[in-house]
Amino acid sequence: MQKRIVASEFLGTLLLVFFAVGSAVVAVEYLGTVGIALTFGFTLLALAYALGPISGCHVNPAVTLGMLMAGRIDLRTAVERWVAQFLGAIVGAALLFLLAKQIPGLETSGEFGTNGYDDRSAVGINIGGAFLAEVVLTFLLVYVVLAVTHKVAVTGFDGLPIGLALAAIHLVGIPLTGTSVNPARSFGPALFAGGVALSQLWLFIVAPLVGGAIAAYAHRLTHPFPNVLPEETEDAI
Amino acid sequence: MQKRIVASEFLGTLLLVFFAVGSAVVAVEYLGTVGIALTFGFTLLALAYALGPISGCHVNPAVTLGMLMAGRIDLRTAVERWVAQFLGAIVGAALLFLLAKQIPGLETSGEFGTNGYDDRSAVGINIGGAFLAEVVLTFLLVYVVLAVTHKVAVTGFDGLPIGLALAAIHLVGIPLTGTSVNPARSFGPALFAGGVALSQLWLFIVAPLVGGAIAAYAHRLTHPFPNVLPEETEDAI
Amino acid sequence: MQKRIVASEFLGTLLLVFFAVGSAVVAVEYLGTVGIALTFGFTLLALAYALGPISGCHVNPAVTLGMLMAGRIDLRTAVERWVAQFLGAIVGAALLFLLAKQIPGLETSGEFGTNGYDDRSAVGINIGGAFLAEVVLTFLLVYVVLAVTHKVAVTGFDGLPIGLALAAIHLVGIPLTGTSVNPARSFGPALFAGGVALSQLWLFIVAPLVGGAIAAYAHRLTHPFPNVLPEETEDAI
Amino acid sequence: MQKRIVASEFLGTLLLVFFAVGSAVVAVEYLGTVGIALTFGFTLLALAYALGPISGCHVNPAVTLGMLMAGRIDLRTAVERWVAQFLGAIVGAALLFLLAKQIPGLETSGEFGTNGYDDRSAVGINIGGAFLAEVVLTFLLVYVVLAVTHKVAVTGFDGLPIGLALAAIHLVGIPLTGTSVNPARSFGPALFAGGVALSQLWLFIVAPLVGGAIAAYAHRLTHPFPNVLPEETEDAI
Repeated sequence: MQKRIVASEFLGTLLLVFFAVGSAVVAVEYLGTVGIALTFGFTLLALAYALGPISGCHVNPAVTLGMLMAGRIDLRTAVERWVAQFLGAIVGAALLFLLAKQIPGLETSGEFGTNGYDDRSAVGINIGGAFLAEVVLTFLLVYVVLAVTHKVAVTGFDGLPIGLALAAIHLVGIPLTGTSVNPARSFGPALFAGGVALSQLWLFIVAPLVGGAIAAYAHRLTHPFPNVLPEETEDAI
Repeated sequence: MQKRIVASEFLGTLLLVFFAVGSAVVAVEYLGTVGIALTFGFTLLALAYALGPISGCHVNPAVTLGMLMAGRIDLRTAVERWVAQFLGAIVGAALLFLLAKQIPGLETSGEFGTNGYDDRSAVGINIGGAFLAEVVLTFLLVYVVLAVTHKVAVTGFDGLPIGLALAAIHLVGIPLTGTSVNPARSFGPALFAGGVALSQLWLFIVAPLVGGAIAAYAHRLTHPFPNVLPEETEDAI
Repeated sequence: MQKRIVASEFLGTLLLVFFAVGSAVVAVEYLGTVGIALTFGFTLLALAYALGPISGCHVNPAVTLGMLMAGRIDLRTAVERWVAQFLGAIVGAALLFLLAKQIPGLETSGEFGTNGYDDRSAVGINIGGAFLAEVVLTFLLVYVVLAVTHKVAVTGFDGLPIGLALAAIHLVGIPLTGTSVNPARSFGPALFAGGVALSQLWLFIVAPLVGGAIAAYAHRLTHPFPNVLPEETEDAI
Repeated sequence: MQKRIVASEFLGTLLLVFFAVGSAVVAVEYLGTVGIALTFGFTLLALAYALGPISGCHVNPAVTLGMLMAGRIDLRTAVERWVAQFLGAIVGAALLFLLAKQIPGLETSGEFGTNGYDDRSAVGINIGGAFLAEVVLTFLLVYVVLAVTHKVAVTGFDGLPIGLALAAIHLVGIPLTGTSVNPARSFGPALFAGGVALSQLWLFIVAPLVGGAIAAYAHRLTHPFPNVLPEETEDAI
């Protein structure tokens, strides 16, 4: 089962980066902010239903951190998931890079769907604002994931609010930072974009993890802990 | 449990104001009316699934009024929820104000995602039209909430029609008044915008409450009252 | 119960006309075709969950005709629903007319969200094309409603495909005819628009009914008839 | 039952081509990429709920290939479905062609909603890029279909991720190739467009089938095989 979880996290992150970041790389002029936000949301929603029963479809190190802090998974599976997520994001970005090279005149360095602040932000947000934005944006995602799921798996209605929360997060966040809320999603494209994208990358790793950790804490204040139904307690991790 | 309800209403209103009003403050040029309406709808949908089982996810004094009039909650919890909603909206607007300050050149006074009529309405609607619009717009929201929920909690399919109803309400209402349908959502940002936003604020508190009250009345004409399944009656309030 | 059904059909059609047609009347410059189509779809989705368990949320004479031909309802309730739907559409259009009068400079005669062909169609479709379009557009709506529901009530997942089918129908149909697929929705606004809108109105009553009838026939070819689960047969009409 | 499956696949593919390809043919200036992508997604979502319990709503030869390779259906029903899908696509395209002829000045040759590469791609993607894009785009669709369904039928939540995955796929893919991911959807319109659309058609038949086959393979790595619940095994094909 553990092997399926790792494969699922790898493939899910790969597909999220290829499709959702891909919409920003190859189709931004055709989609605008609304279209890119819907691509992120709908892709995660579809993956949540496809991979949820296998791995819970974290596909995001900040979600995995929240799940770890909420006591839903143990450290070993968390580390395995983190490795799978970063590898998946790198392979997804590589596949997207290969595709972008087949489009004459498309610029593949500099931006390439990466996140940024200052002059790499559409509205020119400063570093403090970018950090604050990523913390609050990630808070909503991880809080919703923790609140709607029980234990690990994503089933039933869960995928709907998770996917549409990510869409709402991108609607607000794309003009600010391009929206990370996911260290792996930021890491993969930045490797191929290089330059300033790499030097700003730390913020889009640290701030989402901080937002996810705060969400795990806030979740305990509003929801019973552990968030398992009585009949599930027995086989809870 | 009561403490969790209050915390849930506070946090939910805070997040609704930060994300949904935030989309109008920091991203309006990138989203247009459709994008802002989707942000309101998707954020409420996600919150409905996350907070619904705890508090019913009112996050709106007009919804709480409708629930009170429908006999689903008692006056004491209604008052506690109202306080939590207004406080949440103020903190959410403050956080948004802090973020907006990190964006060079962004105007944070005057508009700041507030509601308005006359020359503060995109189509220049007059005061009577704004009142009528807010009554009917709020009617749909509160009517849908009362019709799809039983007792207090939001579960199962409920979050989907509630969230997408709010999106439809904003699609129609943003050009008219910016769409309140929620006194708390209007109150928080108006405090920071100041000026005319504050002097027009009364309409966006009174009209939504009137709309919510009419919805509670109409609901009794179309739906059995009390709207509880037989097996739920025992522990109904 | 019958009284609740009639009240539900009246109120539902009123709200559909006010919100969905309203988006075309007061907000077309802000929404475009995509925004108006989403308003129709999301409003019907929300109404389907709110009114479905009471009346099945037809709110459309063509849907009621399909249900009648499929043997799901009898003629008497069909006639009562038709009357309620047309009255609801008239009151909804009147309320919208009253609102539009509060917006300085807004033209309320001529178009007012009505349907049309020739020079009243955005793409200039001719009368034969408009008839064909309305037949096929209505076919999809009524076919989906018949296929996803059992007996009368709308419950569970039903509202989701019904609402989003109406959105898809409007995405294709708005540039063609403004999209009727609903004789009541066309009738109410045409009364207030007057002129050519009234003289073209017959097509938007006849073609949707033809489309609904063909859908009821096609439904028997693809789905078991009657479309009731064994355990439901006993109390089926 | 087999007759209903074939009729369902024929009608479903016909409606998908008429509505979704139709949005690109008659309404592209009004919808943009986002509107067309939503039409594809919402139409498939509605069809999945309407036809899913009858045929599983493949309406796509690549999905049928994936189902065949996953051992969910046998070769005979696969061949019957393929024939029904191509016939449905031809009739849907013919109906759309007839409709388009009623719109003065609308060009019905050359493009007509077909797929293409090089100078028939909005971004000018080359043949290798188009092949790669179609393989990965189809991979997501078929992988999601295999992962969320059990055996053949589409029920419950399945239609939601399937429909919104198709929307996400079109958001990314329309600027690249117009998005096929469905050999039947490409075949029908190409017959009426003629010229270069026909000479490029092979790619939009081969690449989606390759993507579907890879998805069937990948699905075995992440999900238990056969993907049937124990209690379903008995009557599984």
